[in-house]
Amino acid sequence: MPKTTLRITSKNYSSWSMRGWLLAKFAGLPFQEDIVPPDDPDARAEILLLSSSILVPSLKHGDIFVWDTLAIAEYLNEVRPAAKLLPADQAARAHCRAICGEMHSGFSALRSALPMNLKAHFPNFKIWSRAQADIQRITTIWKECLATYGGPYLFGERTMADAMYAPVITRFITYDVKLEPICAAYSKRIMAMPEMKEWIAAAQKEPEDIDELDVEF
Amino acid sequence: MPKTTLRITSKNYSSWSMRGWLLAKFAGLPFQEDIVPPDDPDARAEILLLSSSILVPSLKHGDIFVWDTLAIAEYLNEVRPAAKLLPADQAARAHCRAICGEMHSGFSALRSALPMNLKAHFPNFKIWSRAQADIQRITTIWKECLATYGGPYLFGERTMADAMYAPVITRFITYDVKLEPICAAYSKRIMAMPEMKEWIAAAQKEPEDIDELDVEF
Repeated sequence: MPKTTLRITSKNYSSWSMRGWLLAKFAGLPFQEDIVPPDDPDARAEILLLSSSILVPSLKHGDIFVWDTLAIAEYLNEVRPAAKLLPADQAARAHCRAICGEMHSGFSALRSALPMNLKAHFPNFKIWSRAQADIQRITTIWKECLATYGGPYLFGERTMADAMYAPVITRFITYDVKLEPICAAYSKRIMAMPEMKEWIAAAQKEPEDIDELDVEF
Repeated sequence: MPKTTLRITSKNYSSWSMRGWLLAKFAGLPFQEDIVPPDDPDARAEILLLSSSILVPSLKHGDIFVWDTLAIAEYLNEVRPAAKLLPADQAARAHCRAICGEMHSGFSALRSALPMNLKAHFPNFKIWSRAQADIQRITTIWKECLATYGGPYLFGERTMADAMYAPVITRFITYDVKLEPICAAYSKRIMAMPEMKEWIAAAQKEPEDIDELDVEF
Protein backbone atom coordinates (compact mmCIF):
# COMPACT_ATOMS: atom_id res chain seq x y z
CA MET A 1 0.00 0.00 0.00
CA PRO A 2 1.45 3.41 -0.93
CA LYS A 3 2.54 5.63 1.93
CA THR A 4 -0.17 8.19 2.61
CA THR A 5 0.24 11.49 4.41
CA LEU A 6 -2.33 14.20 4.99
CA ARG A 7 -0.94 17.63 5.75
CA ILE A 8 -3.11 19.68 8.07
CA THR A 9 -2.69 22.48 10.59
CA SER A 10 -4.53 23.50 13.77
CA LYS A 11 -7.34 21.11 14.66
CA ASN A 12 -9.01 23.85 16.67
CA TYR A 13 -8.95 26.61 14.08
CA SER A 14 -8.51 25.18 10.60
CA SER A 15 -11.80 24.30 8.98
CA TRP A 16 -10.13 23.22 5.72
CA SER A 17 -7.90 20.83 7.67
CA MET A 18 -10.99 19.33 9.27
CA ARG A 19 -12.65 18.87 5.88
CA GLY A 20 -9.64 17.15 4.34
CA TRP A 21 -9.19 14.91 7.37
CA LEU A 22 -12.87 13.89 7.49
CA LEU A 23 -12.82 13.13 3.77
CA ALA A 24 -9.82 10.84 4.17
CA LYS A 25 -11.48 9.13 7.15
CA PHE A 26 -14.78 8.74 5.28
CA ALA A 27 -12.84 7.24 2.35
CA GLY A 28 -11.27 4.68 4.66
CA LEU A 29 -7.79 5.46 3.40
CA PRO A 30 -5.26 4.91 6.20
CA PHE A 31 -2.98 7.94 6.50
CA GLN A 32 -0.44 9.62 8.72
CA GLU A 33 -0.93 13.22 9.80
CA ASP A 34 1.69 15.81 8.99
CA ILE A 35 0.80 18.74 11.20
CA VAL A 36 2.12 22.13 10.10
CA PRO A 37 2.54 24.46 13.10
CA PRO A 38 -0.08 27.21 13.08
CA ASP A 39 2.66 29.86 13.16
CA ASP A 40 4.03 28.64 9.84
CA PRO A 41 3.43 31.53 7.41
CA ASP A 42 1.53 29.39 4.93
CA ALA A 43 -0.57 27.63 7.53
CA ARG A 44 -1.33 31.02 8.99
CA ALA A 45 -2.48 32.18 5.57
CA GLU A 46 -4.83 29.24 5.41
CA ILE A 47 -6.40 30.10 8.75
CA LEU A 48 -6.48 33.85 8.23
CA LEU A 49 -7.43 34.02 4.59
CA LEU A 50 -10.07 31.43 5.22
CA SER A 51 -9.42 29.48 2.08
CA SER A 52 -7.93 26.18 1.13
CA SER A 53 -4.30 26.47 -0.02
CA ILE A 54 -1.65 24.43 -1.76
CA LEU A 55 -0.23 23.59 1.66
CA VAL A 56 -3.22 22.72 3.81
CA PRO A 57 -4.91 20.37 3.38
CA SER A 58 -2.82 18.36 0.99
CA LEU A 59 -2.58 14.64 0.43
CA LYS A 60 0.45 12.62 -0.55
CA HIS A 61 -0.57 9.15 -1.70
CA GLY A 62 2.48 7.29 -2.97
CA ASP A 63 3.80 9.44 -5.81
CA ILE A 64 0.61 11.44 -6.20
CA PHE A 65 0.32 14.83 -4.54
CA VAL A 66 -3.09 16.49 -4.39
CA TRP A 67 -4.02 19.81 -2.83
CA ASP A 68 -7.29 21.75 -2.66
CA THR A 69 -10.09 20.19 -0.64
CA LEU A 70 -12.42 19.43 -3.56
CA ALA A 71 -9.59 17.94 -5.61
CA ILE A 72 -8.70 15.76 -2.61
CA ALA A 73 -12.34 14.69 -2.32
CA GLU A 74 -12.55 13.73 -6.00
CA TYR A 75 -9.23 11.90 -5.78
CA LEU A 76 -10.33 9.94 -2.72
CA ASN A 77 -13.57 9.08 -4.51
CA GLU A 78 -11.53 7.65 -7.38
CA VAL A 79 -9.17 5.57 -5.25
CA ARG A 80 -11.81 4.44 -2.75
CA PRO A 81 -15.02 4.16 -4.81
CA ALA A 82 -16.55 1.74 -2.29
CA ALA A 83 -16.68 4.57 0.26
CA LYS A 84 -19.21 6.37 -1.99
CA LEU A 85 -18.02 9.90 -1.28
CA LEU A 86 -20.34 10.86 -4.15
CA PRO A 87 -23.93 9.66 -4.58
CA ALA A 88 -24.49 6.86 -7.12
CA ASP A 89 -27.40 8.66 -8.84
CA GLN A 90 -26.27 11.16 -11.46
CA ALA A 91 -28.68 13.96 -10.55
CA ALA A 92 -27.88 13.55 -6.85
CA ARG A 93 -24.17 13.50 -7.67
CA ALA A 94 -24.49 16.80 -9.57
CA HIS A 95 -26.46 18.27 -6.67
CA CYS A 96 -23.83 17.06 -4.19
CA ARG A 97 -21.00 18.65 -6.18
CA ALA A 98 -23.00 21.89 -6.51
CA ILE A 99 -23.41 22.35 -2.76
CA CYS A 100 -19.81 21.28 -2.12
CA GLY A 101 -18.79 23.93 -4.64
CA GLU A 102 -20.87 26.56 -2.85
CA MET A 103 -19.06 25.78 0.40
CA HIS A 104 -15.70 25.75 -1.37
CA SER A 105 -15.96 29.21 -2.90
CA GLY A 106 -18.61 30.97 -0.86
CA PHE A 107 -19.90 31.97 2.55
CA SER A 108 -17.11 34.47 3.11
CA ALA A 109 -19.18 36.55 5.55
CA LEU A 110 -19.79 33.48 7.71
CA ARG A 111 -16.12 32.53 7.57
CA SER A 112 -14.86 35.89 8.76
CA ALA A 113 -17.61 36.63 11.30
CA LEU A 114 -17.74 33.13 12.81
CA PRO A 115 -14.26 31.61 12.51
CA MET A 116 -13.96 27.99 13.55
CA ASN A 117 -12.87 27.69 17.18
CA LEU A 118 -13.77 24.34 18.66
CA LYS A 119 -12.61 25.19 22.18
CA ALA A 120 -14.79 28.27 22.49
CA HIS A 121 -18.43 28.92 23.21
CA PHE A 122 -20.10 32.32 22.93
CA PRO A 123 -23.69 32.25 24.16
CA ASN A 124 -25.96 34.89 22.61
CA PHE A 125 -23.32 35.83 20.07
CA LYS A 126 -24.55 38.70 17.89
CA ILE A 127 -24.51 37.70 14.24
CA TRP A 128 -23.82 40.26 11.57
CA SER A 129 -26.52 40.41 8.91
CA ARG A 130 -24.41 39.23 5.99
CA ALA A 131 -23.32 36.19 7.99
CA GLN A 132 -27.01 35.69 8.76
CA ALA A 133 -27.72 35.47 5.03
CA ASP A 134 -25.04 32.79 4.74
CA ILE A 135 -26.63 30.85 7.60
CA GLN A 136 -29.98 31.13 5.84
CA ARG A 137 -28.55 29.76 2.61
CA ILE A 138 -26.81 26.88 4.41
CA THR A 139 -29.94 25.78 6.23
CA THR A 140 -31.93 26.05 2.98
CA ILE A 141 -29.39 23.72 1.35
CA TRP A 142 -29.65 21.24 4.21
CA LYS A 143 -33.45 21.26 4.24
CA GLU A 144 -33.65 20.71 0.49
CA CYS A 145 -31.21 17.79 0.71
CA LEU A 146 -32.85 16.17 3.72
CA ALA A 147 -36.30 16.51 2.12
CA THR A 148 -35.14 15.22 -1.28
CA TYR A 149 -33.02 12.28 -0.16
CA GLY A 150 -34.71 11.44 3.14
CA GLY A 151 -31.64 11.72 5.43
CA PRO A 152 -30.10 10.83 7.77
CA TYR A 153 -27.17 12.49 5.94
CA LEU A 154 -27.50 15.18 3.27
CA PHE A 155 -27.64 12.67 0.42
CA GLY A 156 -29.04 9.72 2.38
CA GLU A 157 -25.79 7.89 3.03
CA ARG A 158 -22.73 9.84 4.10
CA THR A 159 -20.97 11.69 1.26
CA MET A 160 -18.34 14.37 0.76
CA ALA A 161 -21.04 17.00 1.35
CA ASP A 162 -21.29 16.06 5.03
CA ALA A 163 -17.53 16.59 5.41
CA MET A 164 -17.69 19.92 3.58
CA TYR A 165 -20.45 21.25 5.86
CA ALA A 166 -19.16 19.73 9.14
CA PRO A 167 -17.04 22.75 10.22
CA VAL A 168 -20.07 24.99 9.79
CA ILE A 169 -21.92 22.88 12.33
CA THR A 170 -19.17 23.49 14.86
CA ARG A 171 -19.44 27.22 14.17
CA PHE A 172 -23.18 27.10 14.81
CA ILE A 173 -22.45 25.49 18.19
CA THR A 174 -19.56 27.81 19.09
CA TYR A 175 -21.53 30.96 18.24
CA ASP A 176 -24.86 29.75 19.59
CA VAL A 177 -26.76 29.86 16.28
CA LYS A 178 -30.37 28.77 16.78
CA LEU A 179 -31.53 26.15 14.27
CA GLU A 180 -34.87 24.68 13.25
CA PRO A 181 -35.44 21.13 14.58
CA ILE A 182 -34.59 19.38 11.28
CA CYS A 183 -31.28 21.26 11.02
CA ALA A 184 -30.53 20.79 14.71
CA ALA A 185 -31.11 17.05 14.33
CA TYR A 186 -28.79 16.88 11.32
CA SER A 187 -26.12 18.83 13.23
CA LYS A 188 -26.41 16.46 16.18
CA ARG A 189 -25.99 13.49 13.84
CA ILE A 190 -22.77 14.92 12.41
CA MET A 191 -21.40 15.80 15.85
CA ALA A 192 -22.09 12.21 16.98
CA MET A 193 -19.93 10.65 14.24
CA PRO A 194 -16.89 8.91 15.79
CA GLU A 195 -14.63 10.81 13.36
CA MET A 196 -15.94 14.18 14.59
CA LYS A 197 -15.52 13.12 18.21
CA GLU A 198 -11.93 12.05 17.52
CA TRP A 199 -11.07 15.34 15.78
CA ILE A 200 -12.68 17.51 18.43
CA ALA A 201 -11.00 15.61 21.28
CA ALA A 202 -7.63 16.26 19.61
CA ALA A 203 -8.51 19.95 19.10
CA GLN A 204 -9.36 20.31 22.79
CA LYS A 205 -5.88 19.07 23.70
CA GLU A 206 -4.11 21.37 21.25
CA PRO A 207 -1.78 23.85 23.00
CA GLU A 208 -2.92 27.46 22.70
CA ASP A 209 0.29 28.93 21.34
CA ILE A 210 -1.10 31.09 18.59
CA ASP A 211 -2.13 34.32 20.25
CA GLU A 212 -1.28 36.17 17.08
CA LEU A 213 -4.47 34.81 15.61
CA ASP A 214 -6.28 37.67 17.31
CA VAL A 215 -6.11 39.57 14.09
CA GLU A 216 -7.27 42.80 12.67
CA PHE A 217 -10.28 41.87 10.58
CA MET B 1 -31.53 14.85 -26.93
CA PRO B 2 -32.56 16.60 -23.70
CA LYS B 3 -33.13 20.32 -23.84
CA THR B 4 -30.05 22.12 -22.56
CA THR B 5 -29.87 25.67 -21.27
CA LEU B 6 -26.92 27.51 -19.80
CA ARG B 7 -27.76 30.50 -17.67
CA ILE B 8 -25.18 33.27 -17.80
CA THR B 9 -25.05 37.02 -17.36
CA SER B 10 -22.87 39.80 -18.81
CA LYS B 11 -20.37 38.54 -21.36
CA ASN B 12 -18.21 41.58 -20.75
CA TYR B 13 -18.04 41.44 -16.96
CA SER B 14 -18.91 37.98 -15.70
CA SER B 15 -15.88 35.72 -15.50
CA TRP B 16 -17.88 32.82 -14.05
CA SER B 17 -20.30 33.03 -16.97
CA MET B 18 -17.36 32.82 -19.35
CA ARG B 19 -15.99 29.75 -17.57
CA GLY B 20 -19.33 27.91 -17.64
CA TRP B 21 -19.88 28.78 -21.28
CA LEU B 22 -16.39 27.70 -22.36
CA LEU B 23 -16.79 24.43 -20.45
CA ALA B 24 -20.05 23.65 -22.24
CA LYS B 25 -18.46 24.53 -25.59
CA PHE B 26 -15.37 22.41 -24.86
CA ALA B 27 -17.68 19.53 -23.91
CA GLY B 28 -19.45 19.81 -27.25
CA LEU B 29 -22.85 19.86 -25.60
CA PRO B 30 -25.26 21.96 -27.70
CA PHE B 31 -27.07 24.47 -25.52
CA GLN B 32 -29.20 27.59 -25.56
CA GLU B 33 -28.13 30.66 -23.65
CA ASP B 34 -30.40 32.11 -21.00
CA ILE B 35 -28.96 35.55 -20.32
CA VAL B 36 -29.87 37.12 -16.99
CA PRO B 37 -29.76 40.93 -17.21
CA PRO B 38 -26.79 42.33 -15.29
CA ASP B 39 -29.11 44.50 -13.20
CA ASP B 40 -30.86 41.42 -11.82
CA PRO B 41 -30.03 41.39 -8.09
CA ASP B 42 -28.60 37.88 -8.16
CA ALA B 43 -26.60 38.38 -11.32
CA ARG B 44 -25.29 41.59 -9.81
CA ALA B 45 -24.20 39.62 -6.75
CA GLU B 46 -22.30 37.26 -9.00
CA ILE B 47 -20.42 40.08 -10.66
CA LEU B 48 -19.85 42.12 -7.51
CA LEU B 49 -19.10 39.38 -5.04
CA LEU B 50 -16.84 37.81 -7.59
CA SER B 51 -17.96 34.29 -6.92
CA SER B 52 -19.96 31.63 -8.65
CA SER B 53 -23.57 31.47 -7.44
CA ILE B 54 -26.58 29.22 -7.66
CA LEU B 55 -27.89 31.44 -10.46
CA VAL B 56 -24.91 32.03 -12.72
CA PRO B 57 -23.60 29.96 -14.29
CA SER B 58 -26.10 27.16 -14.06
CA LEU B 59 -26.90 24.35 -16.45
CA LYS B 60 -30.24 22.74 -17.12
CA HIS B 61 -29.81 19.47 -19.01
CA GLY B 62 -33.15 17.74 -19.36
CA ASP B 63 -34.33 17.20 -15.79
CA ILE B 64 -30.93 17.76 -14.25
CA PHE B 65 -30.04 21.17 -12.83
CA VAL B 66 -26.43 21.89 -11.91
CA TRP B 67 -24.94 25.07 -10.53
CA ASP B 68 -21.44 26.02 -9.42
CA THR B 69 -18.76 26.11 -12.09
CA LEU B 70 -16.75 23.11 -10.86
CA ALA B 71 -19.88 21.01 -10.44
CA ILE B 72 -20.88 21.94 -14.01
CA ALA B 73 -17.42 20.96 -15.23
CA GLU B 74 -17.58 17.56 -13.50
CA TYR B 75 -21.11 17.00 -14.81
CA LEU B 76 -20.10 17.86 -18.37
CA ASN B 77 -17.14 15.51 -18.04
CA GLU B 78 -19.54 12.71 -17.06
CA VAL B 79 -22.03 13.28 -19.88
CA ARG B 80 -19.42 14.05 -22.55
CA PRO B 81 -16.41 11.86 -21.59
CA ALA B 82 -15.08 11.96 -25.16
CA ALA B 83 -14.39 15.68 -24.75
CA LYS B 84 -11.80 14.82 -22.08
CA LEU B 85 -12.43 17.80 -19.86
CA LEU B 86 -10.19 15.99 -17.38
CA PRO B 87 -6.83 14.36 -18.22
CA ALA B 88 -6.82 10.56 -18.65
CA ASP B 89 -3.82 10.05 -16.36
CA GLN B 90 -4.75 9.87 -12.68
CA ALA B 91 -1.91 12.03 -11.35
CA ALA B 92 -2.53 14.64 -14.05
CA ARG B 93 -6.25 14.53 -13.30
CA ALA B 94 -5.59 15.20 -9.60
CA HIS B 95 -3.24 18.05 -10.57
CA CYS B 96 -5.86 19.49 -12.93
CA ARG B 97 -8.56 19.42 -10.26
CA ALA B 98 -6.15 21.01 -7.75
CA ILE B 99 -5.44 24.05 -9.93
CA CYS B 100 -9.10 24.34 -10.91
CA GLY B 101 -9.89 24.32 -7.19
CA GLU B 102 -7.36 27.08 -6.56
CA MET B 103 -9.04 29.25 -9.18
CA HIS B 104 -12.48 28.39 -7.82
CA SER B 105 -11.82 29.47 -4.24
CA GLY B 106 -8.83 31.75 -4.45
CA PHE B 107 -7.19 34.75 -6.05
CA SER B 108 -9.56 37.20 -4.37
CA ALA B 109 -7.06 40.07 -4.57
CA LEU B 110 -6.75 39.61 -8.32
CA ARG B 111 -10.52 39.42 -8.70
CA SER B 112 -11.22 42.66 -6.90
CA ALA B 113 -8.23 44.63 -8.21
CA LEU B 114 -8.51 43.48 -11.83
CA PRO B 115 -12.19 42.76 -12.54
CA MET B 116 -12.93 41.22 -15.91
CA ASN B 117 -13.81 43.90 -18.47
CA LEU B 118 -13.30 42.71 -22.01
CA LYS B 119 -14.11 46.07 -23.63
CA ALA B 120 -11.50 47.98 -21.67
CA HIS B 121 -7.76 48.43 -21.91
CA PHE B 122 -5.64 50.19 -19.30
CA PRO B 123 -2.04 50.57 -20.39
CA ASN B 124 0.49 50.80 -17.54
CA PHE B 125 -2.15 49.88 -15.00
CA LYS B 126 -0.67 49.94 -11.49
CA ILE B 127 -1.10 46.57 -9.82
CA TRP B 128 -1.57 46.33 -6.09
CA SER B 129 0.95 44.06 -4.38
CA ARG B 130 -1.50 41.40 -3.20
CA ALA B 131 -2.87 41.07 -6.72
CA GLN B 132 0.74 40.82 -7.83
CA ALA B 133 1.19 37.79 -5.56
CA ASP B 134 -1.86 36.21 -7.21
CA ILE B 135 -0.39 36.85 -10.65
CA GLN B 136 2.87 35.26 -9.49
CA ARG B 137 1.04 32.16 -8.29
CA ILE B 138 -0.98 31.87 -11.51
CA THR B 139 2.07 32.08 -13.75
CA THR B 140 3.87 29.54 -11.51
CA ILE B 141 0.92 27.17 -12.00
CA TRP B 142 1.04 27.66 -15.77
CA LYS B 143 4.79 27.16 -16.03
CA GLU B 144 4.65 23.97 -13.95
CA CYS B 145 1.86 22.58 -16.11
CA LEU B 146 3.42 23.54 -19.43
CA ALA B 147 6.79 22.08 -18.33
CA THR B 148 5.25 18.87 -16.97
CA TYR B 149 2.81 18.09 -19.78
CA GLY B 150 4.56 19.79 -22.69
CA GLY B 151 1.73 22.08 -23.82
CA PRO B 152 0.22 23.48 -25.92
CA TYR B 153 -2.56 23.62 -23.29
CA LEU B 154 -2.03 23.32 -19.53
CA PHE B 155 -2.42 19.54 -19.52
CA GLY B 156 -1.33 18.89 -23.10
CA GLU B 157 -4.76 18.64 -24.68
CA ARG B 158 -7.43 21.14 -23.75
CA THR B 159 -9.09 20.46 -20.36
CA MET B 160 -11.34 22.21 -17.88
CA ALA B 161 -8.26 23.97 -16.48
CA ASP B 162 -7.94 26.08 -19.63
CA ALA B 163 -11.54 27.23 -19.25
CA MET B 164 -11.02 28.01 -15.57
CA TYR B 165 -7.97 30.19 -16.28
CA ALA B 166 -9.23 31.84 -19.49
CA PRO B 167 -10.84 34.89 -17.82
CA VAL B 168 -7.55 35.61 -16.06
CA ILE B 169 -5.87 35.87 -19.44
CA THR B 170 -8.33 38.54 -20.49
CA ARG B 171 -7.59 40.42 -17.26
CA PHE B 172 -3.87 40.29 -18.02
CA ILE B 173 -4.60 41.87 -21.40
CA THR B 174 -7.06 44.46 -20.07
CA TYR B 175 -4.72 45.60 -17.29
CA ASP B 176 -1.52 45.35 -19.31
CA VAL B 177 0.15 42.68 -17.16
CA LYS B 178 3.60 41.84 -18.53
CA LEU B 179 4.21 38.10 -18.90
CA GLU B 180 7.24 35.92 -19.54
CA PRO B 181 7.38 34.50 -23.09
CA ILE B 182 6.09 31.03 -22.17
CA CYS B 183 3.07 32.52 -20.37
CA ALA B 184 2.49 35.09 -23.11
CA ALA B 185 2.51 32.29 -25.70
CA TYR B 186 0.01 30.26 -23.69
CA SER B 187 -2.23 33.32 -23.33
CA LYS B 188 -2.08 33.94 -27.06
CA ARG B 189 -3.07 30.32 -27.71
CA ILE B 190 -6.14 30.65 -25.48
CA MET B 191 -7.15 33.98 -27.02
CA ALA B 192 -6.92 32.38 -30.48
CA MET B 193 -9.44 29.64 -29.69
CA PRO B 194 -12.59 30.10 -31.82
CA GLU B 195 -14.71 29.83 -28.66
CA MET B 196 -12.86 32.74 -27.05
CA LYS B 197 -13.21 34.83 -30.19
CA GLU B 198 -16.94 34.13 -30.30
CA TRP B 199 -17.44 35.08 -26.65
CA ILE B 200 -15.36 38.26 -26.88
CA ALA B 201 -17.12 39.39 -30.06
CA ALA B 202 -20.46 39.04 -28.27
CA ALA B 203 -19.10 40.93 -25.25
CA GLN B 204 -17.97 43.80 -27.47
CA LYS B 205 -21.54 44.17 -28.75
CA GLU B 206 -23.12 44.09 -25.31
CA PRO B 207 -24.95 47.32 -24.45
CA GLU B 208 -23.33 49.27 -21.64
CA ASP B 209 -26.36 49.68 -19.40
CA ILE B 210 -24.86 48.87 -16.05
CA ASP B 211 -23.27 52.06 -14.77
CA GLU B 212 -24.03 50.99 -11.23
CA LEU B 213 -21.17 48.54 -11.50
CA ASP B 214 -18.84 51.40 -10.56
CA VAL B 215 -18.97 50.22 -7.00
CA GLU B 216 -17.45 51.06 -3.71
CA PHE B 217 -14.75 48.47 -3.24
